[in-house]
Amino acid sequence: MMMRRDRLLLAVTLTAIFTADLYFVLLPKLRQRQPGPGNGACLCPSSRGTNFTLAGYSGLTIPWFSNITSIDLQGKEVGAMDDPTDWGSKLGRLFAHPLYNIQTPELGLEERLMQSEELMEYYRRKVSRWERHMKLYSEAAAALNMTMLEHQVTFDPEASWLKFHLGINRYALYARDDPAITRLLQDMQATTVISADYTQDEKALKGACDCTQVVKPSGHHLKLALKMQNFGKAMFKPMRQQRDQETPGDVFYFVDFQRHNAEIAAFHLDRILDFRRVPPVVGRLVNVTGEILLTTHNEDLRSVFFTSPANNTCFFAKCLYVCKTEYAVCGSPDLLEGSMSAYLPGLSIAPRISLPNPWIRSYTFTGREEWEVNPFYCDTIKRLYPYNSGNRLLNIIDMAIFDFLIGNMDRHHYEIFTKFGDEGFLLHFDNAKGFGKHSHDEMSILAPLSQCCIIKRSTLLRLQLLSQDHYRLSDVMRESLGGDALQPVLAEPHLQALDRRLQCVLKTVHRCVRRLGEAQVITTDFVDTSVMPESVKPVAMPNKEK
Amino acid sequence: MMMRRDRLLLAVTLTAIFTADLYFVLLPKLRQRQPGPGNGACLCPSSRGTNFTLAGYSGLTIPWFSNITSIDLQGKEVGAMDDPTDWGSKLGRLFAHPLYNIQTPELGLEERLMQSEELMEYYRRKVSRWERHMKLYSEAAAALNMTMLEHQVTFDPEASWLKFHLGINRYALYARDDPAITRLLQDMQATTVISADYTQDEKALKGACDCTQVVKPSGHHLKLALKMQNFGKAMFKPMRQQRDQETPGDVFYFVDFQRHNAEIAAFHLDRILDFRRVPPVVGRLVNVTGEILLTTHNEDLRSVFFTSPANNTCFFAKCLYVCKTEYAVCGSPDLLEGSMSAYLPGLSIAPRISLPNPWIRSYTFTGREEWEVNPFYCDTIKRLYPYNSGNRLLNIIDMAIFDFLIGNMDRHHYEIFTKFGDEGFLLHFDNAKGFGKHSHDEMSILAPLSQCCIIKRSTLLRLQLLSQDHYRLSDVMRESLGGDALQPVLAEPHLQALDRRLQCVLKTVHRCVRRLGEAQVITTDFVDTSVMPESVKPVAMPNKEK
Repeated sequence: MMMRRDRLLLAVTLTAIFTADLYFVLLPKLRQRQPGPGNGACLCPSSRGTNFTLAGYSGLTIPWFSNITSIDLQGKEVGAMDDPTDWGSKLGRLFAHPLYNIQTPELGLEERLMQSEELMEYYRRKVSRWERHMKLYSEAAAALNMTMLEHQVTFDPEASWLKFHLGINRYALYARDDPAITRLLQDMQATTVISADYTQDEKALKGACDCTQVVKPSGHHLKLALKMQNFGKAMFKPMRQQRDQETPGDVFYFVDFQRHNAEIAAFHLDRILDFRRVPPVVGRLVNVTGEILLTTHNEDLRSVFFTSPANNTCFFAKCLYVCKTEYAVCGSPDLLEGSMSAYLPGLSIAPRISLPNPWIRSYTFTGREEWEVNPFYCDTIKRLYPYNSGNRLLNIIDMAIFDFLIGNMDRHHYEIFTKFGDEGFLLHFDNAKGFGKHSHDEMSILAPLSQCCIIKRSTLLRLQLLSQDHYRLSDVMRESLGGDALQPVLAEPHLQALDRRLQCVLKTVHRCVRRLGEAQVITTDFVDTSVMPESVKPVAMPNKEK
Repeated sequence: MMMRRDRLLLAVTLTAIFTADLYFVLLPKLRQRQPGPGNGACLCPSSRGTNFTLAGYSGLTIPWFSNITSIDLQGKEVGAMDDPTDWGSKLGRLFAHPLYNIQTPELGLEERLMQSEELMEYYRRKVSRWERHMKLYSEAAAALNMTMLEHQVTFDPEASWLKFHLGINRYALYARDDPAITRLLQDMQATTVISADYTQDEKALKGACDCTQVVKPSGHHLKLALKMQNFGKAMFKPMRQQRDQETPGDVFYFVDFQRHNAEIAAFHLDRILDFRRVPPVVGRLVNVTGEILLTTHNEDLRSVFFTSPANNTCFFAKCLYVCKTEYAVCGSPDLLEGSMSAYLPGLSIAPRISLPNPWIRSYTFTGREEWEVNPFYCDTIKRLYPYNSGNRLLNIIDMAIFDFLIGNMDRHHYEIFTKFGDEGFLLHFDNAKGFGKHSHDEMSILAPLSQCCIIKRSTLLRLQLLSQDHYRLSDVMRESLGGDALQPVLAEPHLQALDRRLQCVLKTVHRCVRRLGEAQVITTDFVDTSVMPESVKPVAMPNKEK
């Protein structure tokens, strides 16, 4: 009897202790790890708790669309579960999906942005100009007894950035499987930096802060152009905010920090959405002394360097009337995290135009734009050139979906290559204002979609795929970002927010379809099929159609 | 046997579980709660682990000094332990100590800053001018259909701020037991605000940011003068930083934030050190709409108000060329924490002069002042007027000790009332740059003490008292600050830092005494005893001397 009582006592005591431990230690930790959208979360209307799946579309009537959903997407899901080799990489499985294996047509000369000879000639001229300049500059520096690092420039016809520039075509910035992109990312992450300078737009400002607006963003004057040994160029944006910091609710989007990790994450998301409209971006630890201060030939840039009280090397943003160390970024003691975005071909050889976003915001405290107050705003836009024909409006909506997913409210302009005319894709440049708040979904960014109620079929299909367990957006993003040198690039709540926002997008499309019918909402991509062989029509699925 | 084995098992299991819990759960929590000085802590040289007590001075030879240490301070400690009524309040015990009960001599007319009639006349004139102004302003506002709050002004000859002004004398800003100070703190915390405006120095700047220096502090243009119903005036400094945030190591002292809680804590510390050279400060939750926006008559101030994306009322700092919401402060949605510092009598009736601190710092990135490089700097200063006679240098050293304790590196100037001439005490104005880093002790702030090696006996005795368990500085500060509406005013690590820094000060004095002897280091306060009755000589202890 005593033995049993003792055992009982032991069991009861252990249970009590473990229960207490579970309740007071483990549960709170779990709660901390899996935060909900938080109090400030603006969930998409009535999507709370909705398990939005493809089944919701099963009643849609266009046979092709129904085919895709019931055969390809859903079939794949079951198939994937049966195939144990697929378990390792959701990202691999995604990129192996037929939706991501549509062949690009054979490209004509006019469909490529750059011709090889032209670019090589341009490169050669640049290198010889650089060598002449360096000769003079070295002599001057020696005469002034100035410390500077000198690196040899290599002319490399196989350079990854050259291959990237040559690969740009009317459909996207790069091909899905282009090995040059992998090399370019590696090069930007590790190649020797031979010079640093302000970017062209910084130089245009000449240190003047534009105070025609009430407020000015603070990210200005800190981004730099870094030139690499093989003459590749990248825009460096230094880290200004910790990954776990959220932008406070009182901060307007136009004064929000630029986030280096948002630039990196936006590139990965764009690739996962198969848009390929963001130039390649990678994270890098830059030595601010060895790779900026000692390589720059710009006296202005040299003059903003200083040593902080903590003995770190820092540089600050300089305006004509403001020169504040509060805007400084500091190495530790010299190494500084940042994003490296590949430069596109120069404007002189590949001109682009910048156009105002029709859904531009008011960059003042109280102003409102027409789209914010007029629910029929899209009807006006649809009648206006260039949104009245072709795929421009659909591209704007793609961009809105992309911006909504990353939470970017600062898309005042967009750029296109002039060479591809009105049918060219939109460049999704400058995404550093994204990923500021994970606990808030800014529904107004989706206005182009919710007001126009149209979406490309190809975009919708990929979004639906990414909403499935086996291709879950947050999982493929986590995996994709895991390859970056600065991983973890995004804090976990930002990844979770992507899944939540994806549901908001699909819900918005669903409401449009219910209201207007699928035929009017889901649009076959406006691509000129006359110049393309039958087998490579957009969003055709070669494997399945055989 | 089995029973015993089971019991043993039970005992062993429980012990193992509790040990594991202790090690993995409780210990880490305790470590979190009591952080050490941290990696960045610059402990005072070789004071690490030293238990610096009065015993260290027992070999000092001046009988009076030895008396105090062995009889008063140590005797009191034992006595206090025996008296259970004392246990409740260390602060009460401190203020009951003989060191804090030295009688101030009967004050002559010339030893008071203000004469009652003169101040009343000034007050009456101010009130009637205000009433005339309000009449005109109300008519104008009505004509413009402008919303504004109107409050009646009361002429109150018993107003606490009047009593405070009348109590200022050549020894201190207020008497230890002046009930008007308690009332003034209550009034500043709760009385209706009838108008808000920029402070005089803000107005002098006229929105221009002074860019003659490389950098400019950001606290500018956010402090306001608030007028209360009884015509008392306080300077409001809004909260800009969370209590648990530390100033990053890369931030220079001159661009550090102004902290409202540092203003409050500095007032309490100054009173606890018995200096009484900081005008009364209290914390207040201000309604930025009702108490600032709707009461101000300044159009410029109205124009910097805006509603944030989170729907809070905010106002921002405005410079001629910079107007950034990054410098904005926001209510929640209208209530904003801040410090309220009592105004001194206006310069027209009680002029003050502002003098550069001989230990001023270089307000540039790389510049160094002479005191930073010349160890014999004090010898030069001692020969220069006004530091070559009287107590000015001793007052500078008091100020350095005060600044070292709060970690304020920004004391570029100090002010004195012209009426009291060179013997006047130094005002310890503007302490908002204090309490930025709790994990770092900036020894250079103590340079006046460590280079001159002199200290007032009265100051040293109080510092020694506050280093004892029964009057421990952190405990009396915690208790004193506990009475403020915004308590906890300081995060715990800042309170702990006070004790650590106090040891640094005592250690510095100890080294001086060892090197130069007590007679040369510990100086009887330079107070003109000829006009004072024998019984009230400075630092005399009436109780013990009887």
